[in-house]
Amino acid sequence: MDTLSLAATAASSTDRRAMLLNRFMAVRNTSRALAADLSPEDCQVQSMPDASPVKWHLAHTTWFFETFILCAFDPTYRPFSEPFRVLFNSYYNAVGEKHPRPHRGLLTRPSLDDVLKYRTHVDAAIGDLLSRTPGQDAGLQDLLELGLHHEQQHQELILTDVKHMLSCNPLKPAYRSQAPTEDTRMIGMLPGWTSYEGGIVRIGHDVQGFAFDNESPSHDILLQPYQLANRLVTQEEYLAFMQDDGYRRPELWLSEGWDVINREGWRAPMYWDGAGDDWHAFTLFGIEDLDPLAPVTHISYFEADAFARWAGGRLPREGEWEWAARCQPSAVASPQANLLESGFLHPRPAVAQTGVTGPGQMFGDVWEWTSSSYEPYPGFAAATGAVGEYNGKFMCNQYVLRGGSCVTSRSHVRATYRNFFPTAVRWQFSGLRLARAV
Amino acid sequence: MDTLSLAATAASSTDRRAMLLNRFMAVRNTSRALAADLSPEDCQVQSMPDASPVKWHLAHTTWFFETFILCAFDPTYRPFSEPFRVLFNSYYNAVGEKHPRPHRGLLTRPSLDDVLKYRTHVDAAIGDLLSRTPGQDAGLQDLLELGLHHEQQHQELILTDVKHMLSCNPLKPAYRSQAPTEDTRMIGMLPGWTSYEGGIVRIGHDVQGFAFDNESPSHDILLQPYQLANRLVTQEEYLAFMQDDGYRRPELWLSEGWDVINREGWRAPMYWDGAGDDWHAFTLFGIEDLDPLAPVTHISYFEADAFARWAGGRLPREGEWEWAARCQPSAVASPQANLLESGFLHPRPAVAQTGVTGPGQMFGDVWEWTSSSYEPYPGFAAATGAVGEYNGKFMCNQYVLRGGSCVTSRSHVRATYRNFFPTAVRWQFSGLRLARAV
Amino acid sequence: MDTLSLAATAASSTDRRAMLLNRFMAVRNTSRALAADLSPEDCQVQSMPDASPVKWHLAHTTWFFETFILCAFDPTYRPFSEPFRVLFNSYYNAVGEKHPRPHRGLLTRPSLDDVLKYRTHVDAAIGDLLSRTPGQDAGLQDLLELGLHHEQQHQELILTDVKHMLSCNPLKPAYRSQAPTEDTRMIGMLPGWTSYEGGIVRIGHDVQGFAFDNESPSHDILLQPYQLANRLVTQEEYLAFMQDDGYRRPELWLSEGWDVINREGWRAPMYWDGAGDDWHAFTLFGIEDLDPLAPVTHISYFEADAFARWAGGRLPREGEWEWAARCQPSAVASPQANLLESGFLHPRPAVAQTGVTGPGQMFGDVWEWTSSSYEPYPGFAAATGAVGEYNGKFMCNQYVLRGGSCVTSRSHVRATYRNFFPTAVRWQFSGLRLARAV
Amino acid sequence: MDTLSLAATAASSTDRRAMLLNRFMAVRNTSRALAADLSPEDCQVQSMPDASPVKWHLAHTTWFFETFILCAFDPTYRPFSEPFRVLFNSYYNAVGEKHPRPHRGLLTRPSLDDVLKYRTHVDAAIGDLLSRTPGQDAGLQDLLELGLHHEQQHQELILTDVKHMLSCNPLKPAYRSQAPTEDTRMIGMLPGWTSYEGGIVRIGHDVQGFAFDNESPSHDILLQPYQLANRLVTQEEYLAFMQDDGYRRPELWLSEGWDVINREGWRAPMYWDGAGDDWHAFTLFGIEDLDPLAPVTHISYFEADAFARWAGGRLPREGEWEWAARCQPSAVASPQANLLESGFLHPRPAVAQTGVTGPGQMFGDVWEWTSSSYEPYPGFAAATGAVGEYNGKFMCNQYVLRGGSCVTSRSHVRATYRNFFPTAVRWQFSGLRLARAV
Repeated sequence: MDTLSLAATAASSTDRRAMLLNRFMAVRNTSRALAADLSPEDCQVQSMPDASPVKWHLAHTTWFFETFILCAFDPTYRPFSEPFRVLFNSYYNAVGEKHPRPHRGLLTRPSLDDVLKYRTHVDAAIGDLLSRTPGQDAGLQDLLELGLHHEQQHQELILTDVKHMLSCNPLKPAYRSQAPTEDTRMIGMLPGWTSYEGGIVRIGHDVQGFAFDNESPSHDILLQPYQLANRLVTQEEYLAFMQDDGYRRPELWLSEGWDVINREGWRAPMYWDGAGDDWHAFTLFGIEDLDPLAPVTHISYFEADAFARWAGGRLPREGEWEWAARCQPSAVASPQANLLESGFLHPRPAVAQTGVTGPGQMFGDVWEWTSSSYEPYPGFAAATGAVGEYNGKFMCNQYVLRGGSCVTSRSHVRATYRNFFPTAVRWQFSGLRLARAV
Repeated sequence: MDTLSLAATAASSTDRRAMLLNRFMAVRNTSRALAADLSPEDCQVQSMPDASPVKWHLAHTTWFFETFILCAFDPTYRPFSEPFRVLFNSYYNAVGEKHPRPHRGLLTRPSLDDVLKYRTHVDAAIGDLLSRTPGQDAGLQDLLELGLHHEQQHQELILTDVKHMLSCNPLKPAYRSQAPTEDTRMIGMLPGWTSYEGGIVRIGHDVQGFAFDNESPSHDILLQPYQLANRLVTQEEYLAFMQDDGYRRPELWLSEGWDVINREGWRAPMYWDGAGDDWHAFTLFGIEDLDPLAPVTHISYFEADAFARWAGGRLPREGEWEWAARCQPSAVASPQANLLESGFLHPRPAVAQTGVTGPGQMFGDVWEWTSSSYEPYPGFAAATGAVGEYNGKFMCNQYVLRGGSCVTSRSHVRATYRNFFPTAVRWQFSGLRLARAV
Repeated sequence: MDTLSLAATAASSTDRRAMLLNRFMAVRNTSRALAADLSPEDCQVQSMPDASPVKWHLAHTTWFFETFILCAFDPTYRPFSEPFRVLFNSYYNAVGEKHPRPHRGLLTRPSLDDVLKYRTHVDAAIGDLLSRTPGQDAGLQDLLELGLHHEQQHQELILTDVKHMLSCNPLKPAYRSQAPTEDTRMIGMLPGWTSYEGGIVRIGHDVQGFAFDNESPSHDILLQPYQLANRLVTQEEYLAFMQDDGYRRPELWLSEGWDVINREGWRAPMYWDGAGDDWHAFTLFGIEDLDPLAPVTHISYFEADAFARWAGGRLPREGEWEWAARCQPSAVASPQANLLESGFLHPRPAVAQTGVTGPGQMFGDVWEWTSSSYEPYPGFAAATGAVGEYNGKFMCNQYVLRGGSCVTSRSHVRATYRNFFPTAVRWQFSGLRLARAV
Repeated sequence: MDTLSLAATAASSTDRRAMLLNRFMAVRNTSRALAADLSPEDCQVQSMPDASPVKWHLAHTTWFFETFILCAFDPTYRPFSEPFRVLFNSYYNAVGEKHPRPHRGLLTRPSLDDVLKYRTHVDAAIGDLLSRTPGQDAGLQDLLELGLHHEQQHQELILTDVKHMLSCNPLKPAYRSQAPTEDTRMIGMLPGWTSYEGGIVRIGHDVQGFAFDNESPSHDILLQPYQLANRLVTQEEYLAFMQDDGYRRPELWLSEGWDVINREGWRAPMYWDGAGDDWHAFTLFGIEDLDPLAPVTHISYFEADAFARWAGGRLPREGEWEWAARCQPSAVASPQANLLESGFLHPRPAVAQTGVTGPGQMFGDVWEWTSSSYEPYPGFAAATGAVGEYNGKFMCNQYVLRGGSCVTSRSHVRATYRNFFPTAVRWQFSGLRLARAV
């Protein structure tokens, strides 16, 4: 992305096309690699309405390039299959009919093989189109970049959805058999808080490079003085909350949260199993012991909020988080950040980065719940056409999460990035960092 | 309330007690008057889980005074009935067991008569306690004031809940047989917009007089320049939206809103019945023709938001609304405002008030949906004890409404007042006013 | 009924009309008497979809006479209220629109007073019609008799529905304050079994007097030799089943029953509360200790079936029960039978009747579950017109119960009477008697 | 089966074992052949709670042989996989824990390949066991025979479940690409009725050969004189019912049926699509035109019952059907019967069989709804142990179907066979034959 921005100003258009094509192939191959160890059966199943089959993710991301680029920019392009145009539309009402979301798992045809052929077909056509496009077509390139970020979002969902599906199997099978070798690194606990003076600051997308529409326009906000914790809340800390009867004290909970945890019987984070002091968790490497210093994850907004109240703090507002992140190195410039490319596929204990002060673990590990409802920035206007359905229409009854997780691509996350989920969702890698007034 | 504030500084404590007792009796009698024309059967029924029986409202407001004042401040007080202490607790987990909300309508015993005796008993005990309290007990007086505002909230609910219950009856019976005589008043349409420069402004409770905890602390916010419409959106305008296929165009709707209106089959505001150009509505006076110039009401957040998008505007943020309201006369100083005491019990067309510029209908007629999620103000801390459950624990997945409605007491509403409801709720008198960027 | 039959052959038509009118007034007054101690609130509430408000029962039974007799036979009759004709229709699709069953509790208007006036109006009109009808109109008299038995069915429902409604109230109020004085009677436990040879026997309605259409045609059936227990299963015996882990042993249960008791959490009969050896039950006289020798009641088909399997017996088939009942005195000839007129409103221990052998408690106390699915007798044809909707259309997925209960009128039950309910219903006074092969 | 019976009396035990092994291999291979054209994805999916994945059917039938034969009779047997013993238990509570039915489709591991290996393992072990068993072990052989009939039941379910799953796919893919070549056969419509005198007749299993426990004991029943139609109800006739507003006339329907068809929006048999005179249906060969003379299928009990009422007839009782079937050639002796081996996988028009009088189509084409609730025969006792859970615990709220369908194995069905389903089920090949009184 940063590379792309440079390209836009410095390189010849031939170079730019080559670089874009490289990135396209890299992202597309990553998706395929994520599914490489999965069987056709694994890629078929939808384990809950919130999740989608891996096969569907592989097809839908392809549909996006076919629909918004090939069909729009290449008059000679022949769609791979007419029925796929309906089957793999997700929520774009403007593009026409769509297949009902909870029924995605029923589509045994096309097979995984057919979907992989669909990917090959579209990849070739994109390559062909890029090679034929004479000069710089900003519209095409913007949509291509959007499509790549869209695919990176689905890569994250592939992993969270597979995790959920495998967890439903009493055999508790692992997605991968072995985690990367641990480097002998010094664990520095990053204790303490970083203080911010507040005042009028500017947030939102205002630099070169890609951003989703919901990150614009950049605008001024007014912050009160605040502090952010230097690391994420750990499993050890969360266990202390549980052992202090955190799930049984109504005064710690939002009213709706209290109803949810009792209706669902939640007494621990999702994927945890155990009692007393003896807990383990299902991970993408199977069932593992809890690392007390690793960040807690798979908690709902309600649990994050209750924990913060119990701990005497609060969740950060999204502007507070963003302002702090803007003062730190970016994800791309944070090699120690635990992101998809790290291969751990699970949050890890905080580690001090030499020469860096301020809050750590801002990028990767877990998405951090903020106390901010997901709302349009002042002056926000959705893009015209189907692409405009991307973000705006979800701005209601969801809360913003920031910073990416251990299954987010490094090139996909940034300080202005706004993720969002409803308050009772837990299958994402979601956790929290404490904030407090000065 | 203003009266009270003056009292606090100027009058002798005897006077103050007398004035407080007067207000107590006035509010309590209003509740009884609202139920005066209702039969025991009318007061018994709970027509949906969101609503409560009138009998329950009458008892629960009494329970509040008994629990938080008599039992707390009067060691000689004997509760009217032990079982009532559980039956008429609403949501105060800290006070102990409570009767499940959706079963309130099953309590045929105690009878309405018994509940009226309960009221008489508690009213007498409060009178007695006030007469015996030697000096000024600020804690008691604060709780009494809170109890009165609590009761005024339930007065509003008595009317909205009865309206819903009567609407379920195929006979469509009226709550009252005749609306007040209409004064021949000049209808001034208050066209146009009022502009605000924005910048840093202060909102929240910062003057003397009662306010709920959620209106504090007062704090600075940063506003972009904006405009507010000078009147509420009318039924005529809303009908134009309907006739322009507003309910059938997904691009106008939030994603969740689109799902809701299709699942519920909504094609018009609640209580409307008709087709094409011929619509009428169920009111507290029975079925009536639509007044085209009266404000539209009984619409959900989703409908308000979709209408605003269709009309090329947006909903105001709550800070924008409050800033504008602070620049206008208060509810108490707006005799033309259509509030409970006006007796119309239904929104009415806007009328120009001589010598007043800026937006009209700020108080009364309908609660105005804002685009602001209901969140704590920076530095908000819930009160300690059960009273602290009043507001804070609902600050999630709800949206703020401002300004009061035609069934809100004049002494109950103010510029800083924050009402809140979930996005799909329609049985309240809810409507909207447009905002837009300058 | 028997009286009526005699009348049909022996008395002058004037006498017959007078006798019919007497019976009409007696049945109608009984309904009113059952509601006499209930408040308007008590008569208003519908505590579950299966139940109806007392007010609705009072109105619907009146609607039956107005619709099928007055409107059909009296050209001068003016309906009391046009809207009542829809509001109080129950399930007769052929008669036109009807008010949805689960919303019966929402009708606060008409008031109980209005419904009582409706009853008075219709009673007077019936009296007037009978006095004017010159001779014998068999059609009218048959419908009148049907209407009276219909009303007796609803009298039973008034009591079971009120019982359910009061049980939902945490105050556990009593319907009546005092049970009739107990006669000092010898409790004879009627131990043992009565044997029947089987063979071809005739069942179904084949004598003079009223019967519902589902009791016809009488026909031959083939019975294997069998035995019936001489009394109903007692609470003591049922408690032994519970204490022998009856509710936790899947091998005792029908598959669907096992699902139901676990989904609902049933571990005892409905209205029982307690643990171990200490149980009490909610009755129409409030909470009472269990009488170990009284028949168990408020159990579902599934519980009756599981108990029988545990006890080494089985439920009787309806033909077996009827054949045994035909060999015993009728309900009218069984003064010791515990029926509505006895006033106990709860099952009582079996008592030997001097000079009577064979099974006791055949009539009254509790409806006895049989193992027979509710099906039409061979050659059954529903009556034409709306009255034909009475029984036939329910002949599916329900099971037959026999013998009447402690809230059934003595003149309403007979050996051929077929009651029927779905398998998971418990709010009726339902129990069981064991059968077994010889 | 018949072969086996002969074997039991005439052949040496070595021959008998060989014959049993032959049958074992033939049935086991049929299951595999039914799945041969399906992909791993096709075998994975569970399209509704009533259905199961093909992979599960393949594994569960294998589990039956492993659990009840190998683990019970072969002390040297080592289970293929411990977890499979829980995963592929279906409903046998006595055998221990089981995997919840609606989650069967979530088990992507074990893979289809693993399940096929499981089959190979168990098949070899059974072959080995049989070769080692010295003499005649009746218990083992009975259980083996039970296991084979159990597997044949699941073969039928494989086809009905796959059909449902494929029908959910908007592509409407075919299970097989081509139906068998049609023989040019004379269509004889078998018009008219066959009359039966009634009286005492004997039904139930009373000959040599296999039968399920629910077919015993044989016993006498008493039949009134009756007539049975000589063929099944056709699609042409059912279409006439539809066009005569059959689905819109409440007087034709059972009360519960009327609720079901309106709640579900049923206006035609399952898998039909069309309007007016133009209908087609989804079959295992994809979407096909309706053959007017072929039997109607995929109808619920409610629809069968309503059609019969409309047509002036009724459904047969199961005893009536069985008595008629006992007077006709058996399935094995009816080469023209359209059963699984015929390969049509869909019902076909009736054809006269030379020299045979009386009702045709008694075996194959469609399961025929009877009006008989599924109940134990007098004296029925479930087998002891887990196998006893096979049938008895489902004897409630289901109705009996007779005669087998186009996907039933010829060696699996017989005159005494009792199939059963709830009244609202349509995904089986279910249809009807009319009966009437003489």
